[in-house]
Amino acid sequence: MIDQQKTKQPQITLVGAGPGDAELITLKAVKALNTADVVLYDALVNEELLAYAPTWAVKVYVGKRSGDHTHSQETINKLMVDYAINYGHVVRLKGGDPFVFGRGFEELEYAASFNIPAQVIPGISSSIGVPELQHIPVTHRGLSESFWVVTGTTAEGKISPDLYDAAKSKATVVVLMGIHKLAEIADIFKNEGKGKLPVAVIQSGSTSNEKVAIDVVDNIVVTVKESNITSPALIILGEVVSLHSQFQAIREFYDFVDTK
Amino acid sequence: MIDQQKTKQPQITLVGAGPGDAELITLKAVKALNTADVVLYDALVNEELLAYAPTWAVKVYVGKRSGDHTHSQETINKLMVDYAINYGHVVRLKGGDPFVFGRGFEELEYAASFNIPAQVIPGISSSIGVPELQHIPVTHRGLSESFWVVTGTTAEGKISPDLYDAAKSKATVVVLMGIHKLAEIADIFKNEGKGKLPVAVIQSGSTSNEKVAIDVVDNIVVTVKESNITSPALIILGEVVSLHSQFQAIREFYDFVDTK
Repeated sequence: MIDQQKTKQPQITLVGAGPGDAELITLKAVKALNTADVVLYDALVNEELLAYAPTWAVKVYVGKRSGDHTHSQETINKLMVDYAINYGHVVRLKGGDPFVFGRGFEELEYAASFNIPAQVIPGISSSIGVPELQHIPVTHRGLSESFWVVTGTTAEGKISPDLYDAAKSKATVVVLMGIHKLAEIADIFKNEGKGKLPVAVIQSGSTSNEKVAIDVVDNIVVTVKESNITSPALIILGEVVSLHSQFQAIREFYDFVDTK
Repeated sequence: MIDQQKTKQPQITLVGAGPGDAELITLKAVKALNTADVVLYDALVNEELLAYAPTWAVKVYVGKRSGDHTHSQETINKLMVDYAINYGHVVRLKGGDPFVFGRGFEELEYAASFNIPAQVIPGISSSIGVPELQHIPVTHRGLSESFWVVTGTTAEGKISPDLYDAAKSKATVVVLMGIHKLAEIADIFKNEGKGKLPVAVIQSGSTSNEKVAIDVVDNIVVTVKESNITSPALIILGEVVSLHSQFQAIREFYDFVDTK
């Protein structure tokens, strides 16, 4: 006879780990980790967070390799359900917020197709939090009444067509996963006559590896190269970037060039 | 002679309290509260969070009254600086995220003008987290490659002009502070031929008072009225809303009406 007390119910919790700083996770997320039997975690998750799971919990790295996205997502879905059925509570720990380009909903749907109870705990999205830690607000009276978050890498590996519309808009534009297409993205804004729009590129925001490059659209590719900024990084374009402490010097430089 | 050990340095920390659920606050925010001498908190902040501040800390409610915004923001700025100079560490506890229509940057600037060190700790923004808790993702492969967050109440008390552009876009559109203008917002989308676009209105997301109304743009005003939904509430418009468990029945109803 099976000992009912010891048979754990399958359960899945998608958890947002935030942008990288281990303290930028919620209390609710920590509570979920405390009761995890298994943690499946992504590449951009701070591994210090695994210490919130019981020592005996299974911890599995499921970071995707680029170029092999489709297979990996299927593998993750299957692992998640297999572990839930065999071990009990699976915490699926994802960088940033699970529903911002995180394919989190697909994981919820997959769990539901096996009738496994699943919930989601929001995390601090890099799209807002990373510029914020650099004291760049996505909205600010007189400068921006909205912000538009776009992916630089769609399912087909391309810049989202939405970015062309975003470049025409008055919104602050945040591009996630777009650093490898920075030159192309800058061109889209230049084509809208926005070569002088302030832009910031922030690598590994909120962590000890954080780097920031600030300039106008016309010159951002050069500045980012000089700063040795690489992935993971986000791009924020808009007048709000002019509020950054480094921007005043840049403005004075361009004013000087303009009046020569 | 002044006892230097007891003279506290003025310091200000803007803290995002998240959407309402007391567990949706970060560990970093709790740490800031633990060392607060004063907490200035807004109307939409869960008061349970005040328990993280020392019992002897001063707790001041600074929720704004509608119709008196400008004066109130000035008063808050002054209170914040006065308390920092006289008491030490002021935590400015704000609903959601301090930089999403929160006027947080203005508070940072004001602190800087008095040379008071100030930092900001991001919070879970309702714009992403509240739909997420209803299992509505702001992005989803095949349905949305971007999301656009707009205010329904600008400094002049109007709908942001950005919303007219947002209604033309393929982005998921999230409107904060727009519930009192729902009919006007619905009209903007109808004028773009989007009367059948799925929309959700969520009141007091993440709290025990949470209410949700789901329909298409053409009918959302009636449905919200029937659901007795009031402020605070957010509006999310886009195909991603069709992923909500209640939407299938709505789709079937409209398909039925269409084929009659």
